[in-house]
Amino acid sequence: MSAFIEEKKSSGITDVPGFQSVGTSCDVRNKKDGRLDLALIFSPTPCTAAGVFTKNAVRAAPVNLCQELLRVENQFHGVVVNSGNANACTGENGMKDAWSMQFSAASACNTPSETFFVCSTGRIGEELPMQKIRKGIKDAATNLGSTKEHGLNTAKAILTSDTKEKMITVKIPHLHTVDKASDLDFITISGIAKGAGMIQPNMATMLAFIATDADISKTLLQKILAEVVELSFNAITVDGDMSTNDTVILLANGESGIKISPTQSSLFQNFVLGLRHVCAVLADKIVSDGERITKVVELCVEGAKNKTDANKIARSIGNSLLVKTSWYGSDPNWGRILDAAGYSGASIQEEKLDLAYATPADTTKQHSVPVIKKGRCLLKNKSRWKEIVSKKRFSIIMDLNLGKASYRLLSTDLSEEYVDFNKSE
Amino acid sequence: MSAFIEEKKSSGITDVPGFQSVGTSCDVRNKKDGRLDLALIFSPTPCTAAGVFTKNAVRAAPVNLCQELLRVENQFHGVVVNSGNANACTGENGMKDAWSMQFSAASACNTPSETFFVCSTGRIGEELPMQKIRKGIKDAATNLGSTKEHGLNTAKAILTSDTKEKMITVKIPHLHTVDKASDLDFITISGIAKGAGMIQPNMATMLAFIATDADISKTLLQKILAEVVELSFNAITVDGDMSTNDTVILLANGESGIKISPTQSSLFQNFVLGLRHVCAVLADKIVSDGERITKVVELCVEGAKNKTDANKIARSIGNSLLVKTSWYGSDPNWGRILDAAGYSGASIQEEKLDLAYATPADTTKQHSVPVIKKGRCLLKNKSRWKEIVSKKRFSIIMDLNLGKASYRLLSTDLSEEYVDFNKSE
Repeated sequence: MSAFIEEKKSSGITDVPGFQSVGTSCDVRNKKDGRLDLALIFSPTPCTAAGVFTKNAVRAAPVNLCQELLRVENQFHGVVVNSGNANACTGENGMKDAWSMQFSAASACNTPSETFFVCSTGRIGEELPMQKIRKGIKDAATNLGSTKEHGLNTAKAILTSDTKEKMITVKIPHLHTVDKASDLDFITISGIAKGAGMIQPNMATMLAFIATDADISKTLLQKILAEVVELSFNAITVDGDMSTNDTVILLANGESGIKISPTQSSLFQNFVLGLRHVCAVLADKIVSDGERITKVVELCVEGAKNKTDANKIARSIGNSLLVKTSWYGSDPNWGRILDAAGYSGASIQEEKLDLAYATPADTTKQHSVPVIKKGRCLLKNKSRWKEIVSKKRFSIIMDLNLGKASYRLLSTDLSEEYVDFNKSE
Repeated sequence: MSAFIEEKKSSGITDVPGFQSVGTSCDVRNKKDGRLDLALIFSPTPCTAAGVFTKNAVRAAPVNLCQELLRVENQFHGVVVNSGNANACTGENGMKDAWSMQFSAASACNTPSETFFVCSTGRIGEELPMQKIRKGIKDAATNLGSTKEHGLNTAKAILTSDTKEKMITVKIPHLHTVDKASDLDFITISGIAKGAGMIQPNMATMLAFIATDADISKTLLQKILAEVVELSFNAITVDGDMSTNDTVILLANGESGIKISPTQSSLFQNFVLGLRHVCAVLADKIVSDGERITKVVELCVEGAKNKTDANKIARSIGNSLLVKTSWYGSDPNWGRILDAAGYSGASIQEEKLDLAYATPADTTKQHSVPVIKKGRCLLKNKSRWKEIVSKKRFSIIMDLNLGKASYRLLSTDLSEEYVDFNKSE
């Protein structure tokens, strides 16, 4: 039995039994274009929840609200999200507006206020149009539902400059014993996300909402989510800028009746693998839809002395302007890669280092071309490097040969269009 | 008496009594275009010397040679420099080539090998055309001289993608007592530099050579240079990429007969001020001639808890893609500035923070427009922010109001032309 099965066509949140959702328009941007910009996710059954948030010292009001909520509460019913305005750098009024969104959503769903999470994404430094938002939330709540269309509209309503909605659903099979007969049940995990896009003058923001019908404690859920996010959402970079609003929220309503605990090691492992897949796919969709990017590059740093070094090197390469512009130009510029690794602050011995360009690891037939072997450049392979670097997706494998730690980071190129797109309001 | 006098028209190294130099062509790039690409700096009188080098773990052969030289030797006669090829990532052969350059230059000048520094800048990963270089060094040595033209050609020969030569000369007045009569003497300090430019597929490299006729010990010279570089060359950023070849070398031949020691506090201070000015002007020239930049932005972070925090914040803002693209678009995007400060890892309290856009501090009439006061945005000033941000040079002053530490960083915008320029060989 495989650990999990990915659904061919995900509808997002509404694929999970017991979850309702909706995406509507309340014209946050004041453009009267009917764009979906308000989403509600709701489970009538109380949920446990987990969350991971931006580490930025300047953080938006709703981020502060969600963190506090998660610290003091144990039962949750949903999330209210608006796009078009991030409610960031808005001082005390911003906090009041976030509370007001929470109150409106919870009242409209007939649940206590402190069971609702609040998220905002979009323009920063301007106050939310609260009249529109309060009315929008009220209307949205009356339209909650569980159809595929409800799921799709929810995934659409959280987007800003993304070009595509981002959804994934997996099912984890579980052989259940009921009255001495075996019965195959499933846990479902579904996630939606919005990506590293900007809305007009603002900043990249990543939001992800994940729902599951697993029965799992808040403490365990938080532990698993934190670990999984480290290897997925925290392992991507488009422009190296960390947002004030980054948020991942996971709700578990237990409706599958299948309890997850570390003692059932196989089911527990499969749940972790399923959640990891959900997060990895959403993270990949975010990178692939990065602003005006033309390439996705997987950086695999191996043989590092420790994890921190491997991470430092991958980020140093993945955020280097000179490296990113060379990728854009399909230029196999290994010198810039070595240079960026060199200034990362990690331990490197040039004479031990191997470097290769490769087609992505997940392609059926991986094709790898060495560039440097023990610090010596293999110039004869130049035309074959060029061939790989010209592809829309490729991998760079750097083996430091100093230890056993590794790190994988997904990055992108940097285009002239990115600069043009971000140069002004 | 002012601390130092800046010469109106510097000729670089040959402004300093006792120094000879030359810039010639030996066709390192194999383009047969007669471009100056080889420079010699020479003092027949032995010099003390100091040097500051890249902290990159991947460093070019000549950098290793210079560091070792400075560690074990005490008397120096000159520097040999080529542009067009960085002699970086070239393994053992690279080291041999650097030694060969050193030997050729020293023999041609009739001095011991271990008195010559070696620097290279340009394309990386390819071996030097040593036959051409050895012949070039021999020819150059026969053409050494002290005219203005010699100085200018030297400043030209070290350039790569720079658009202008970078030179500065200051004179430090000193009231000398000879046989009971007073006599006004001068110490001269001259510097030349090449900037954050790339030559074809390579990386930004900063080189600076400074000469003085002060009489000063090697230990004291190194101490002063290290401090001064921290506040000048290390306080600039164009693209955040640190090179494998960055080098600053300072030679002092003592020909002025004026001895510098910490006990003569006024002369000592004036010498430090003069050297600081030389380095600050060269650093400014490097930033202003950054690749395809259109604006220079001075970041002043004040009121930080400590120097490290102030430095982190300035670099986080000055290297943010989103901030740099907004400057390019003359967009007063304070949200991105706050965001970058927030993820720098430094202590920030949003509700205490002040932010202002200003015309540069060195303009006769500084003009400052507040953007944020104690965390609250002053939106009414928006048109006046825009006016300042539209200038070719402006300042951003962030006061954290948390302590007394400050840091000043010179940065640039990021243009579409930068991406185009750097996207391929």
